[in-house]
Amino acid sequence: MLVRFAGLGLGAATLTTVAAASGNTNADVLTSSNDVSSFMAEPVTPLSTLVKDKDDMKVKMEMLIMKIQADFCRALENEEDPSKKFIVDRWTRAEGGGGVTCVIQNGKTFEKAGVNVSVVHGILPVDAVRQMKARGKELIGKELPFFAAGISSVIHPSNPHVPTVHFNYRYFEVTQEKGEKMWWFGGGTDLTPYYLVEEDVRHFHSTLKKACDQHDAGYYPKFKKWCDEYFLVSHRNECRGVGGIFFDDFEMHSQEDCFKFVKSCAESVIPSYVPLVKKHRNDPYTSAERDWQLLRRGRYVEFNLVYDRGTKFGLHTPGARIESILMSLPVHAKWEYMHSPSDGTPEAKLTEILKNPKEWI
Amino acid sequence: MLVRFAGLGLGAATLTTVAAASGNTNADVLTSSNDVSSFMAEPVTPLSTLVKDKDDMKVKMEMLIMKIQADFCRALENEEDPSKKFIVDRWTRAEGGGGVTCVIQNGKTFEKAGVNVSVVHGILPVDAVRQMKARGKELIGKELPFFAAGISSVIHPSNPHVPTVHFNYRYFEVTQEKGEKMWWFGGGTDLTPYYLVEEDVRHFHSTLKKACDQHDAGYYPKFKKWCDEYFLVSHRNECRGVGGIFFDDFEMHSQEDCFKFVKSCAESVIPSYVPLVKKHRNDPYTSAERDWQLLRRGRYVEFNLVYDRGTKFGLHTPGARIESILMSLPVHAKWEYMHSPSDGTPEAKLTEILKNPKEWI
Repeated sequence: MLVRFAGLGLGAATLTTVAAASGNTNADVLTSSNDVSSFMAEPVTPLSTLVKDKDDMKVKMEMLIMKIQADFCRALENEEDPSKKFIVDRWTRAEGGGGVTCVIQNGKTFEKAGVNVSVVHGILPVDAVRQMKARGKELIGKELPFFAAGISSVIHPSNPHVPTVHFNYRYFEVTQEKGEKMWWFGGGTDLTPYYLVEEDVRHFHSTLKKACDQHDAGYYPKFKKWCDEYFLVSHRNECRGVGGIFFDDFEMHSQEDCFKFVKSCAESVIPSYVPLVKKHRNDPYTSAERDWQLLRRGRYVEFNLVYDRGTKFGLHTPGARIESILMSLPVHAKWEYMHSPSDGTPEAKLTEILKNPKEWI
Repeated sequence: MLVRFAGLGLGAATLTTVAAASGNTNADVLTSSNDVSSFMAEPVTPLSTLVKDKDDMKVKMEMLIMKIQADFCRALENEEDPSKKFIVDRWTRAEGGGGVTCVIQNGKTFEKAGVNVSVVHGILPVDAVRQMKARGKELIGKELPFFAAGISSVIHPSNPHVPTVHFNYRYFEVTQEKGEKMWWFGGGTDLTPYYLVEEDVRHFHSTLKKACDQHDAGYYPKFKKWCDEYFLVSHRNECRGVGGIFFDDFEMHSQEDCFKFVKSCAESVIPSYVPLVKKHRNDPYTSAERDWQLLRRGRYVEFNLVYDRGTKFGLHTPGARIESILMSLPVHAKWEYMHSPSDGTPEAKLTEILKNPKEWI
């Protein structure tokens, strides 16, 4: 089922008031910060459940990612032609759960901007189990009950001087054969510029570091390294971009501490990225620079289709919404046989950095 | 090492005369049909070895694919602007063997035409072994000595009314842990139109059927079905194109019989495809038709990077020449969120066929 929303149509209702209106007497336990009327669409889980199970991590994560989605979409719309707004597709999955996919396509600032929330549950099939095992999770059983809530976004700007950003924050629960429940978080934010502006990359990394440092001074160096290792286009021996942070199987502390860390990271997306859009979206550029951007987008496609575990997990999950998974692909991409930038050009400078990731701060 | 050839520079020499000139006294055993001077570049294996081991299947296959490459490239050049010729890259692989890659890029008729021969040997690593196991081959051992000779080609024409063709014919030898040698052939030819002209598809399939029928009346129906099943973009539940033939693990008869069948198939590429290029390369087309072609090329990229075993095998083979493997990707491709052709359009007609493959003859 697909319902396309112009908006939520809930006026200024908060989850509290909506829930109250729907007769839930526990409604007042929710604070007004959970302002569902600001979300891009109604959450996936029924409001009554969100109220009833408000302390369950599944609910907390869904509320967080719905809010992050709305905040980020609004921040991007501020940089876009006012006549161009996100289209919002709220969808349900026959096997359990659903999602909210927000896309701007062929905008003035954003050639493609996708911000997707999904909250799905059901049975994890063998192929998807294999994708998870690749993450170092040893799971016992062939078909396992699972829950996954995540936000995932890729922004491909029109102007080659504005970098592409990707972020993804997710929470998993899997119940093993003998009933043991496992949970973990994963996520990250990373930047893929077409032209290197070192000051911008430092701003990006510093903002992520600040978010990490609030929780543990060891996180940023560890997750920065993991990011460089993960976003590697192995067959070309080059990184997809200039990195950021990446982590998986995150379950080191209490669930609440993990959640707080993930929240800080997700909240750092706007301050890390939007200033770069503002700064460069009106930069002049040549058709050769546009061409280079398209070639690099070809590499982006290579990474996403060949290596990205999230994409693989999606493609192997029955009933997955393919258009939401593949919204990460750019509108236009290009491949040229034996293309190689000339020595000393800005294109060669970027290539050099992609082959030799460095410390930015 | 990469040597770019304008031509072979051997004049009208045949393998016989070249070998003779190089002092091989067994040279006269080769017939003049093995005219290496017509090849796009010098074969990968030294001429002296080609003469000495002329009855070895490794040599027979290399000679066949070098000839098929030259014939096909020349046939395509006949349809292209006379000033635009294939660039020819002859390369060697540090781990053993090499290849000859021929590419036309941004031509008038061909946006990208790649015809690649590779003749490689060495040790097959675990990841590549896994790719082969997926083909139903149970191989004993973790790192196995192997030999692979194949021709692989993808032609992406400029005009959306000319279909894309792909073919690949290959011969493998693998030596298992205990010294047992296994060999098999694989291959196929398949067509990916952007607009459906049923008569053209029937011509294509009839030509392949004729080649198959010379050997066994059961081959075409079996390998046609295998083709539809193999070139399936599972996550979209649609075929990549209108099929053709596909087979793997082909070792049913004597090695010589298998080779003759593969030869017939490879020789049917030109008569099955080139008439379609001739017929449509000057068809008028609109920018909307071009756009549709680019969206379909996006799907082509999805298949090649997500599912194609040849690509996966290549990406996992150490020292593989990435530019030759990924020359199958189009110059331009496009993705649009939630694109769907309107009912009753030629684009919808094609989509319908891709979702429901049919018998053409």
